[in-house]
Amino acid sequence: MPRDFSLKKSPLAPANEPKLLPVKGINLYTFSAGLYSSKRDDIAIFIFPKNSSVAEVFTRSSIRSCTLDWNEKILKNKKIHALFVNSGNANTFTGNHGKQSVRSITDQIKKTYAINDDNIFVASTGVIGEKFPISKVLKSISRPQISKKWIYSAKAIMTTDTFPKGISYTSIIEGKKVTITGISKGSGMIEPNMATMLGFIFIDADFGSDILKKLLNENVSHSFNSISVDGDESTNDTVILASSRAIKFKKPFKSISDKRIDDFKKKLRKVFMTLSELIVRDGEGATKLIEINILRAKNEKDARTFAKSIANSSLVKTAIHGSDPNWGRIIMALGKTYININSKKLKIYFGKYLVTKNGLANPSVSDNNLSSYLKNKNIKITIDLGVGSKSSRVITCDLTKKYIDINASYKT
Amino acid sequence: MPRDFSLKKSPLAPANEPKLLPVKGINLYTFSAGLYSSKRDDIAIFIFPKNSSVAEVFTRSSIRSCTLDWNEKILKNKKIHALFVNSGNANTFTGNHGKQSVRSITDQIKKTYAINDDNIFVASTGVIGEKFPISKVLKSISRPQISKKWIYSAKAIMTTDTFPKGISYTSIIEGKKVTITGISKGSGMIEPNMATMLGFIFIDADFGSDILKKLLNENVSHSFNSISVDGDESTNDTVILASSRAIKFKKPFKSISDKRIDDFKKKLRKVFMTLSELIVRDGEGATKLIEINILRAKNEKDARTFAKSIANSSLVKTAIHGSDPNWGRIIMALGKTYININSKKLKIYFGKYLVTKNGLANPSVSDNNLSSYLKNKNIKITIDLGVGSKSSRVITCDLTKKYIDINASYKT
Repeated sequence: MPRDFSLKKSPLAPANEPKLLPVKGINLYTFSAGLYSSKRDDIAIFIFPKNSSVAEVFTRSSIRSCTLDWNEKILKNKKIHALFVNSGNANTFTGNHGKQSVRSITDQIKKTYAINDDNIFVASTGVIGEKFPISKVLKSISRPQISKKWIYSAKAIMTTDTFPKGISYTSIIEGKKVTITGISKGSGMIEPNMATMLGFIFIDADFGSDILKKLLNENVSHSFNSISVDGDESTNDTVILASSRAIKFKKPFKSISDKRIDDFKKKLRKVFMTLSELIVRDGEGATKLIEINILRAKNEKDARTFAKSIANSSLVKTAIHGSDPNWGRIIMALGKTYININSKKLKIYFGKYLVTKNGLANPSVSDNNLSSYLKNKNIKITIDLGVGSKSSRVITCDLTKKYIDINASYKT
Repeated sequence: MPRDFSLKKSPLAPANEPKLLPVKGINLYTFSAGLYSSKRDDIAIFIFPKNSSVAEVFTRSSIRSCTLDWNEKILKNKKIHALFVNSGNANTFTGNHGKQSVRSITDQIKKTYAINDDNIFVASTGVIGEKFPISKVLKSISRPQISKKWIYSAKAIMTTDTFPKGISYTSIIEGKKVTITGISKGSGMIEPNMATMLGFIFIDADFGSDILKKLLNENVSHSFNSISVDGDESTNDTVILASSRAIKFKKPFKSISDKRIDDFKKKLRKVFMTLSELIVRDGEGATKLIEINILRAKNEKDARTFAKSIANSSLVKTAIHGSDPNWGRIIMALGKTYININSKKLKIYFGKYLVTKNGLANPSVSDNNLSSYLKNKNIKITIDLGVGSKSSRVITCDLTKKYIDINASYKT
């Protein structure tokens, strides 16, 4: 059983807990199944109306949780009737017992909530390779009690997270108010292409699954797939966008270019960006949020490779942690991609400070100025390659002793 | 000017300093040019007889030291007359002044040591992007004094290294004794494909440059390119194999399959393996040496990708640091390669302990046993994929708070 850390809240956490709006048509239930050594909620179940729509993206890892095999199968129906999420155990590398546990969970949910189809999504997060605690889970979820506050769901899915992550927006479509509420979790094993992160975004606007899939794809690459804590990627990562379809419109939506949802799309984008940034703000041991911008690259792939190489470099992350203006490590991180670089065109900025130009250190900026800048909690590093027009942005955090502390003793 | 760390010797360092044998025909000079804040040697110059042979491999980084551009040019002559190495400054991202510095160094060496060709190799290691301290260097090397002990050269090239790295062997070829002496440096920015590592291996056996190139290629991939400290790769990495050709043979060597050098090749292999392992033993903050063996992979590329993914995972390295038997992180590191894996055939061993089989935790091995094993200084992790016949071996170290300490304040 993983111990509960009761870790001190990240210094990068927002000052207040988010106010989460309920989403019309969706009921939330939260449970304490005793999956942690201390008393806390560890399961959340969302019940949707029949025919609710859904889109999902998940980890590319070649060893993944059996929950994802299950989800992939039912995703073909393009419908969601319930979503079950537990923390404390990842249900990965758990063999037949793990698979049977998924089946038992969905059977129990069908029984308790009078559901007669299989459109029940399952997401698990926690330790890999430990037997799934199915008896505790089944015992717990057989006595449902509706949860009054959506923030409880954000709390139930936390593992080493130090604060609950969520955000709500409303938008007007055809004069009707629609709601977007998202929750996420994650703080370690975080790298682009989904890490130990879960993101669930709920809406009530009547969009079919095809529209949801397009909205999800449009947003996920710039949000959940553009963050990194430690470059490690998990077996369980999942982002789901689901709609109760409770708010109906005169004319159904066939394209995400439909002008009627311009404002909605802006709000949805904010939800994706916030949920993913909150994960980095809770990066294990993080004390600084680092934004890396690559500008004027030859193509998007190069831009992304450069951004990720910097974001995942232990030497860059420790230097920034120590407010050490050792920009040579950025040079190193760019160079180790093996992608051709014109040193004379390359410009590196720390915030507003131009650090290099013409293939040399900029003599008019002092180490003292740079070091003062690096003492901020929010650091912006900009790399202008000067060879094209493509850009990329990745959010990461510093690497600290606290990260070592947390990760040298997670399981035991 | 980088501060001298006078860091405490790594707990993984060998008990005693190596006894290095001089190599016939090669003279060594060491200097203290004041490139560090405390008094120490920081330059080594090796003078070879005319027509000595050489082979070199260097970093694949797309931003590299101007010293490598110089070396690449003169490497075409396949001859070495001198080798200059300095610590304290990497001469990278130093523009025209950096290039001119290389020229000034080689000119000075030609003058002082009466050399009338350009076959002078230059290697620099230290901080990136700081102006090269050419005046100090020139002043220092203009007063040569022969160095009595080869261990001084291993000390002069240290940066954040906590102990000098070297090894010597002798072998008999055609009844004549030949000597192999190698030195290396490096402790951070270390990843396969050359990192901030320098390796210089000197011999006196009369081999031409083509033979040296083959011997170098044969050895470098299993040694210097199979180690990792932090997954970062430097702009200056260089491994050189050079011969004074002082020991002559009846019949020149045309192939490295020549039986006469069977024993020599074994010794040379040991030199490469030892020099590279010593770098990991001096990994910044390291307390444990971790050997990762991938067995029965489908092909060599897969085997290597799996080994590197485990070796570079911060989560695996911190778990081993904490003697935490959290093998789920190995599963994660294997999975994030996106290479197909048959979980049921996969076997993970910690030392002699079989941790997983048939896609499940092995119930007959206890976390206590595994945790005790992980308290050792030398950890062996074996992954048997059970799908082919190819293998790979990578040496790495754990990730500790000391690493953060060292790297949060290297430059300032």
